[in-house]
Amino acid sequence: MELHGGNIHKIKRENNIKEMLDYSANINPLGVPKSATKAFKNAEKALGAYPDPEYIDLRKAIGKYNNLDMENIIVGNGASELIFLLFKIMSGKRVLIVSPTFAEYERAAKINGCKVEFFPLKESENFEINLKRFENVLENGYDICVICNPNNPTSQLIPLEIMEKIYKMCTSLATLLFVDEAFIEFTDGGLKNSIINTSMDKKYLYVIRAFTKYFGMPGLRLGYAISFNKKITEKINNIKEPWSVNAFAEYAGISVLDDMKYIAESEKWICKEKESFYSELEKIIELKVYKPSANFILLKSKTKPAEEIYKEMLNKGIIIRRCSNFGYLDDTYFRIAIKGESDNKRMVQTLANIMKRG
Amino acid sequence: MELHGGNIHKIKRENNIKEMLDYSANINPLGVPKSATKAFKNAEKALGAYPDPEYIDLRKAIGKYNNLDMENIIVGNGASELIFLLFKIMSGKRVLIVSPTFAEYERAAKINGCKVEFFPLKESENFEINLKRFENVLENGYDICVICNPNNPTSQLIPLEIMEKIYKMCTSLATLLFVDEAFIEFTDGGLKNSIINTSMDKKYLYVIRAFTKYFGMPGLRLGYAISFNKKITEKINNIKEPWSVNAFAEYAGISVLDDMKYIAESEKWICKEKESFYSELEKIIELKVYKPSANFILLKSKTKPAEEIYKEMLNKGIIIRRCSNFGYLDDTYFRIAIKGESDNKRMVQTLANIMKRG
Repeated sequence: MELHGGNIHKIKRENNIKEMLDYSANINPLGVPKSATKAFKNAEKALGAYPDPEYIDLRKAIGKYNNLDMENIIVGNGASELIFLLFKIMSGKRVLIVSPTFAEYERAAKINGCKVEFFPLKESENFEINLKRFENVLENGYDICVICNPNNPTSQLIPLEIMEKIYKMCTSLATLLFVDEAFIEFTDGGLKNSIINTSMDKKYLYVIRAFTKYFGMPGLRLGYAISFNKKITEKINNIKEPWSVNAFAEYAGISVLDDMKYIAESEKWICKEKESFYSELEKIIELKVYKPSANFILLKSKTKPAEEIYKEMLNKGIIIRRCSNFGYLDDTYFRIAIKGESDNKRMVQTLANIMKRG
Repeated sequence: MELHGGNIHKIKRENNIKEMLDYSANINPLGVPKSATKAFKNAEKALGAYPDPEYIDLRKAIGKYNNLDMENIIVGNGASELIFLLFKIMSGKRVLIVSPTFAEYERAAKINGCKVEFFPLKESENFEINLKRFENVLENGYDICVICNPNNPTSQLIPLEIMEKIYKMCTSLATLLFVDEAFIEFTDGGLKNSIINTSMDKKYLYVIRAFTKYFGMPGLRLGYAISFNKKITEKINNIKEPWSVNAFAEYAGISVLDDMKYIAESEKWICKEKESFYSELEKIIELKVYKPSANFILLKSKTKPAEEIYKEMLNKGIIIRRCSNFGYLDDTYFRIAIKGESDNKRMVQTLANIMKRG
């Protein structure tokens, strides 16, 4: 099974290490919001009953956060569940995945018998989407097109006006556009960059979010899908396993979404560190650093393979994310998270030393 | 979607009721164990990272509880996930379900394209399994046979020696025996009644448990499967969604399994109330009461339909479980949980009054 980040538990077990600086997982370093901690108390009280199988209060809160009706919201056990559910109802269909990207789309599509093809973003095009080339490929005919925006691992955001052009192409070809916006809140402008803001008819749109990344709680397992297509929503609800979101995730979800203090602090942190961490990394001449839109950075080593860098960093107590399993990236690429100021300083220093050593 | 118990959240919303005595869900009335409450503190700390995708510590704890190696344990988001996963890897196969029983097996099997047939337990045989008739049907050839033991909603336990005979039949026909033991800890003898205690070769065995029922935390979503077939275990692990168990469930699971105080108190409660609640209910002459093995009781009204009883009980603030969706039970059947002494007294009194009213 491919994992989002390094499997830190396994690494700790196998190396008998207790503390590790995990730059392989892209989590808000501000940690668990205080608003969630308070909500856990109520969740503990609610544990004696099954969660609301319709998750009305949670879906209302998510709807409000997105200026949408709760009818458009499907909650799940992390974004993973909502990726799997979509491909399950689309079993056997043709899927186009814009790559390199998160490997889970391909895995979920293949498990559910879909025929998967890739649209490769090119290194020579700086991993930006070439609309003309994209349209040519899309016209081959697909049932679903998957785009991660901002993209993991390139950390590039496709701006709303370009996404609208892509969506228009999809609509005219009756291709469902599946957009993974798990990292959208980390971009400059945040939710304003979401494709859900388009004024076009949205029935060919399926958007997923995993707000446990932005709200610093990957251990909680909570994600949601935004669906504007009643048939798709109904089909998913019909095959969904009951109660995949537990009481803690339910209660925390409701309370963190309007935690304006946490949101303001997160914005302040990401704004500052995205810029300063990037410019510090750029000084390491042995690396090509891709300018990040989200809370992680794609790097290409000009000297040694990422595997070597990975091992040397591990020796220094830092985990990075090798990128070979993303597809269309060779063994010189790796990805690191953006964390707090002092961790980022240690990261730059350690990485610089290792790269210099050649 | 069919739910385990009444959807108390919906009932409360629609009737604008705040407090309800929920006799429709079969949960240990002792509530959340203190050992779990303590574990939640650690879970909160662990939330900032993904759970261990291999759930090593949790699987070790469950293994120990069952005198098994952790390699035999698969953890899931409630037993539901493990029901779905099995049918998913068995997609398209022939399934025999011993009925009346929990509707989720049929739903999961059909969603995954299995061909479902039923072996009906007969009212005239007191819903006990007739081995001769069963063997005749089993010989038609099935890939999986599903038995819930003790059975929901009949609350009948098939003793280990009979289960072994059934398992022997299955083995000789290469039929996988899928046993749902979600309520086994509530039976006299508890885990000793489990089919995993057989000395036969166990490769045709797949057992699921949902210890959030016995440990009073349905809101937590934690279940597990015991698999003795490496191929099945591997297939399930390959298609499983990552991290379906969140940090709270992971930590609580580890700590409650050796909470001997909670287990002792539960045994004391169920021993006493199973007997006394049953004998009090038997005094209501308008009801046929089936002797329970687990923490719930199947009842048959001799006078009015269960739907009427359901509505009248609801008016009195008590939810019962109508049984028509279990299959092979007519509209006179309903199921109630066994709860604490004072609740059970109120239940008997209310039910007696309603039945007398005719």
